[in-house]
Amino acid sequence: MLDIYLMGTGGTMPLPERALTALLVKYKGKGILIDCGEGTQTMIRKHGQSLYSIDIILLTHFHADHVSGLPGLLLSVAKAERKKPVVIIGPKGLKTVVSSLCIIAPGLPFEVILCELTEREQSFSFEDIRITAFAAEHSVPCCGYSINIDRKPRFDVHAANALGIDKKFWKTLQNGESVISNGIEYTPQMVSGKERKGLKVTYCTDTRPIDSIAFYAKDSDLFIGEGMYGDNDKMQKALENKHSLFAETALLAKKANAKKLWLTHFSPSLREPEAYLSKAADIFPETIIPGELESITLKFEEK
Amino acid sequence: MLDIYLMGTGGTMPLPERALTALLVKYKGKGILIDCGEGTQTMIRKHGQSLYSIDIILLTHFHADHVSGLPGLLLSVAKAERKKPVVIIGPKGLKTVVSSLCIIAPGLPFEVILCELTEREQSFSFEDIRITAFAAEHSVPCCGYSINIDRKPRFDVHAANALGIDKKFWKTLQNGESVISNGIEYTPQMVSGKERKGLKVTYCTDTRPIDSIAFYAKDSDLFIGEGMYGDNDKMQKALENKHSLFAETALLAKKANAKKLWLTHFSPSLREPEAYLSKAADIFPETIIPGELESITLKFEEK
Repeated sequence: MLDIYLMGTGGTMPLPERALTALLVKYKGKGILIDCGEGTQTMIRKHGQSLYSIDIILLTHFHADHVSGLPGLLLSVAKAERKKPVVIIGPKGLKTVVSSLCIIAPGLPFEVILCELTEREQSFSFEDIRITAFAAEHSVPCCGYSINIDRKPRFDVHAANALGIDKKFWKTLQNGESVISNGIEYTPQMVSGKERKGLKVTYCTDTRPIDSIAFYAKDSDLFIGEGMYGDNDKMQKALENKHSLFAETALLAKKANAKKLWLTHFSPSLREPEAYLSKAADIFPETIIPGELESITLKFEEK
Repeated sequence: MLDIYLMGTGGTMPLPERALTALLVKYKGKGILIDCGEGTQTMIRKHGQSLYSIDIILLTHFHADHVSGLPGLLLSVAKAERKKPVVIIGPKGLKTVVSSLCIIAPGLPFEVILCELTEREQSFSFEDIRITAFAAEHSVPCCGYSINIDRKPRFDVHAANALGIDKKFWKTLQNGESVISNGIEYTPQMVSGKERKGLKVTYCTDTRPIDSIAFYAKDSDLFIGEGMYGDNDKMQKALENKHSLFAETALLAKKANAKKLWLTHFSPSLREPEAYLSKAADIFPETIIPGELESITLKFEEK
């Protein structure tokens, strides 16, 4: 089960009725926050979620609306008495930006581990969570993230019994290691059942709709994409500011074969995003204009 | 007329139901903002006030809850197409803190003029607004501010006529300059009516209740003071963290002969500030526990 909480739908600046876009993903008690604008910590509280359990922060880029809330959030995490390290991943410039902003967050009681991206694609594993950062196309270095929960195939008890493998070796084989019993080597593949689909959520705002995004979002259970402009007439602005139209992001979701698309990161000038839903839904019917505190629980297909 | 808008009543961190404390003072279209925490720009919008017309920002100190919203606010001021300079006044460290935070607010289309305080008391005049910064006593360099609108005495038409001063000189005399007519020097004092009371608002949070605050808040029409802790039992915490109790701040207001006291900057642990109102009101009856979007218009006593 992957719990996903949206922290507002706004881009550029926070508004009274629209907080800045950020996302909290929770899996087995581990919290992954994507972006941290002014007000994100308050939205986390509005969701009833804990600041203490934010283990990883993924920053897409360093425009203020995506990072200005970072020092305040880290201080509130400290107030929540966290002692374990917090990992922050982000594009080139991460170390400079975080150290500059944290001039107002000195003496944090936990280690902040900074992973500055150096490649157009980089993957990280945190226990059974696999995160891939991939390059987006914005006016500054910017990236999207896909978060994957991979599932091991089911252990094939029937095969294990048929091979006569002692039960004491089953756990080792389940954990992906081979064993030798009575001079015979048994590999995990010999006792693996059929493949099981994991869960995948992909987040990419602040970008032109380049094809590689569809590649990285492939088969996502949820794709959270850029919805800066609703109307197709805004193409010129989208090109100038390196943002996307609803229709362009919907096409990415379709190419990616995503299950569902949340459009977010609306321009302050886009007063009624719902009025433009059809621009996206005509291309990708499973498009949703999320609420300010939208959330969803993604479940594995089978137990 | 001096319009005063409170931007939340919280201290330490923003909460869903309580924004961080900051204050907007407007006089003749000029905007003076005191402090700028995470969410202050949103509260300014909630008040229906313009970001464009923020001319002066007074920072009390550099704890995150008082300054973390600065880069985002400056960017939103830029989006509002301001071209005129913005003056920022604050304690020692101002230049380092503002330049560090503004790593995410590059290329502002207006000049930011930084005035770093060097003395325990410093005054600034902006047309008919006089601002005095004075030292508070907190865990880091911190100051309070009093904002004064001084009024010239009324022009004494009767005296001017009795002295036979030509009307063409009246404006010059009203503006405080002497004139010479037919070899006789006329001074503004010769045509000044009785003194007229101006308006004064004093703001001082994040401090122990040192007597000098009462001195600088003297005769304030409104004193906005530190309300970190309501209960007198919290004295030990107040001493440790260099904050104040309701009762201590009320005593300052009494000593200052203020007209009204707004208590603000409540600790997140202070769930119901209203429950402790009597701790202050027993000492200073004109104490108010303000609402999140409290505002007041202070009017001159006579036209």
